[in-house]
Amino acid sequence: MYIHIQLLPFRSAPSLLSNRVIVVIDILRATSVIVQAMSQGAKEIIPVKTVEEAFQLAKTLPPSTTLLGGERDSRKIEGFDLGNSPREYQAETVKGKRLILTTTNGTRAFHAVSSGKEVLVGSFFNISAVAGRCFGMDQDLLIYPSGDEGDFSLEDTVCGGMLIDRIMKKSNQSFRLTDASLSAHILYQRFETSLIESFYLSHHGKDLVDRGFEEDLPHCAQVDMTNVVPVFKEGVIRIPHPSPLRGEGKGEGSSLC
Amino acid sequence: MYIHIQLLPFRSAPSLLSNRVIVVIDILRATSVIVQAMSQGAKEIIPVKTVEEAFQLAKTLPPSTTLLGGERDSRKIEGFDLGNSPREYQAETVKGKRLILTTTNGTRAFHAVSSGKEVLVGSFFNISAVAGRCFGMDQDLLIYPSGDEGDFSLEDTVCGGMLIDRIMKKSNQSFRLTDASLSAHILYQRFETSLIESFYLSHHGKDLVDRGFEEDLPHCAQVDMTNVVPVFKEGVIRIPHPSPLRGEGKGEGSSLC
Repeated sequence: MYIHIQLLPFRSAPSLLSNRVIVVIDILRATSVIVQAMSQGAKEIIPVKTVEEAFQLAKTLPPSTTLLGGERDSRKIEGFDLGNSPREYQAETVKGKRLILTTTNGTRAFHAVSSGKEVLVGSFFNISAVAGRCFGMDQDLLIYPSGDEGDFSLEDTVCGGMLIDRIMKKSNQSFRLTDASLSAHILYQRFETSLIESFYLSHHGKDLVDRGFEEDLPHCAQVDMTNVVPVFKEGVIRIPHPSPLRGEGKGEGSSLC
Repeated sequence: MYIHIQLLPFRSAPSLLSNRVIVVIDILRATSVIVQAMSQGAKEIIPVKTVEEAFQLAKTLPPSTTLLGGERDSRKIEGFDLGNSPREYQAETVKGKRLILTTTNGTRAFHAVSSGKEVLVGSFFNISAVAGRCFGMDQDLLIYPSGDEGDFSLEDTVCGGMLIDRIMKKSNQSFRLTDASLSAHILYQRFETSLIESFYLSHHGKDLVDRGFEEDLPHCAQVDMTNVVPVFKEGVIRIPHPSPLRGEGKGEGSSLC
């Protein structure tokens, strides 16, 4: 299996992407929000690039089952129902709902890789489930950290490195790592015993602390809290084949809260 | 001091570059060639993008003092005097000569960052001397690994991380590292005790071994063999203020051979 990681986010050539399974990662916080919301029973999530687009789309959908979520400058957008803290996305709020989500980096990343063979949503919350799905498909893999406004993001890359680690531990087969994916794996090994340390060292993590969202850091560093593997297809994120959730009997069958 | 590293090579905005000191790194092998050649007494080096440009330029210069060097597909170019192995660039060949150099990644990198406030040439050969120059200037620093045909390059990034390490050890002052420069520093720490291991793990290092240039790997992994800090300015690489060379009395005052 060939594994690459795109260390700087950019619009890749569609012809390259169409041959690869893509995993989009935006730990702080878009893909953490998406995985949390889907694990708590959200029906589907529509990532859009702009606030205007979000409001326009919401007008065309039933208000009783539609929620607007996301951030600009890390903060909840005026007129939106939810911000970009995963802790807000609990079952009592999101179960059965359609979410329209717009964030600075993560939601844009989905549109950048929309021509991928399959586009999965990754986070620490569902890292082993994503690794299992990737390993099972046995396709060339491109990990796509959403980055930090076009720049390299430490915490997204550490998560990408952990995904590589989880995949490689599934088999003795040979994996072809690029210089980038090898480096992401080394970065993960550096923070393996304290993922949250990478958040506190990263530009985005420090920025969230400064803006009053420090509680999101330990929350987003939780590993393997759910088995859901959301898929982005034709503009919408869904769980195509609901996976059995861990921790049955705990709320929505997930230990995320 | 603000220190960033550009993990993927690209043409940065000139306005950004003009405020920064840039260090171009292409360990395998362009900047190793340049530092070696200058330490062995080459007068100046003109990096050009294409083979045609090299031949055209050579026609306008005195043939007795001009040499053509470089590679395509890692190999010496037909009609050129020298390839891209630093071991070829000895005093008996290059002393007092002007070199016209064209390589796949390194020479192009100089043109990509030509609007930098000052553009230095870095390699393991002169890492401490470059660190001293950067620290002394106390300007915002952008380390520019040339990469591997547009992709991220492990060995260039490890060298960038070593440069950061050398600079930070010069003072207790606070350095502002970006997520990328912090990551390069971590990658350096992983290979600190065996730089050459990073070459053997990298795509470019493996490719050189396959093409018969394995001897260049231990050669390019030599640390602090010279104090020369070449500067790229107005299209030409020179040593503006010749630094005292280490190992006086050894050939050209350098321990590189």
